[in-house]
Amino acid sequence: MIEVEVKAKIDSFKEMEKRLENLGAVKSKTEFQEDIYFASPIVDFAKTDEALRIRTTNSDTFITYKGPKLNKDAKTRKEVEMTIESAAKARDIFEEIGFSEARTVRKNRQYYTYENFEISLDDVEGLSPYMEIEISLEGNADYSEAQDEIFKLFERLGITEGFERTSYMELLENINSS
Amino acid sequence: MIEVEVKAKIDSFKEMEKRLENLGAVKSKTEFQEDIYFASPIVDFAKTDEALRIRTTNSDTFITYKGPKLNKDAKTRKEVEMTIESAAKARDIFEEIGFSEARTVRKNRQYYTYENFEISLDDVEGLSPYMEIEISLEGNADYSEAQDEIFKLFERLGITEGFERTSYMELLENINSS
Repeated sequence: MIEVEVKAKIDSFKEMEKRLENLGAVKSKTEFQEDIYFASPIVDFAKTDEALRIRTTNSDTFITYKGPKLNKDAKTRKEVEMTIESAAKARDIFEEIGFSEARTVRKNRQYYTYENFEISLDDVEGLSPYMEIEISLEGNADYSEAQDEIFKLFERLGITEGFERTSYMELLENINSS
Repeated sequence: MIEVEVKAKIDSFKEMEKRLENLGAVKSKTEFQEDIYFASPIVDFAKTDEALRIRTTNSDTFITYKGPKLNKDAKTRKEVEMTIESAAKARDIFEEIGFSEARTVRKNRQYYTYENFEISLDDVEGLSPYMEIEISLEGNADYSEAQDEIFKLFERLGITEGFERTSYMELLENINSS
């Protein structure tokens, strides 16, 4: 699967919730997500622009691999995600085969859906408010159109700046190393 | 978890089934198992005596990590196993993070239980008949007693030789390289 996603800093969750409701977006689940990111023993994932994580939510646990971004503006990339039985077991296996825990990102995420978009209001521990808009594409579908649609939706919601291509994990890392 | 397991060549499944039933062992499920073993990009699992595999059975899919054997006679080792959503996705993730498919082992396994033992009659594609007896121990339990019990049970079933410490995967490899 290819996911096309763009995120931007926003001023306030309350204001954005209003705008989303006015637009007709439908509020769906709210989720607490804890993501443990791993470092590879053979490559620097920050340099290869990949990510391997275990995500634990209120209801499920996943392993997710994200491939390098395919273009500059959006975060268009290969993503493989599967549910697993246990975060503790997955961690144990990853560590045994040479991977090490790099960083944990915790957030409350409020999902909205609108047409073929998935919209998230992300309250990440240690960061200011962000909104993310995503479209998922099957196989080798052309992603530039999806990307245009995403930027248009941001505009309709009053967001024309503050776009951020850096991951939450790296944003947190930059704060901690500065 | 620590698993203590010993396997031995047997002459005939039919004869062994009779002996198991005379003993009072209870026949449980029969399973087709397909195991895909992976090679690590950083170590030679054959040398470090580890294994990483995806097992697909009639009903479930697992990732299993097996640590180095802790002693010479039985195959006493750390094992971490968790159910996952999809073998195809797990394969994709392992390959993306640097692992490669090494070998596939297919077998029909007939399970029996007797006291705290799990007994398997293994019809492995490409190998002669084997029987495996296993005890699972929690945490740091002493495994030498478990190992003695396993060898005593083999004796009660008429097996005093033909013990094999090499994994099915390696046995198949030895056949193919000779």
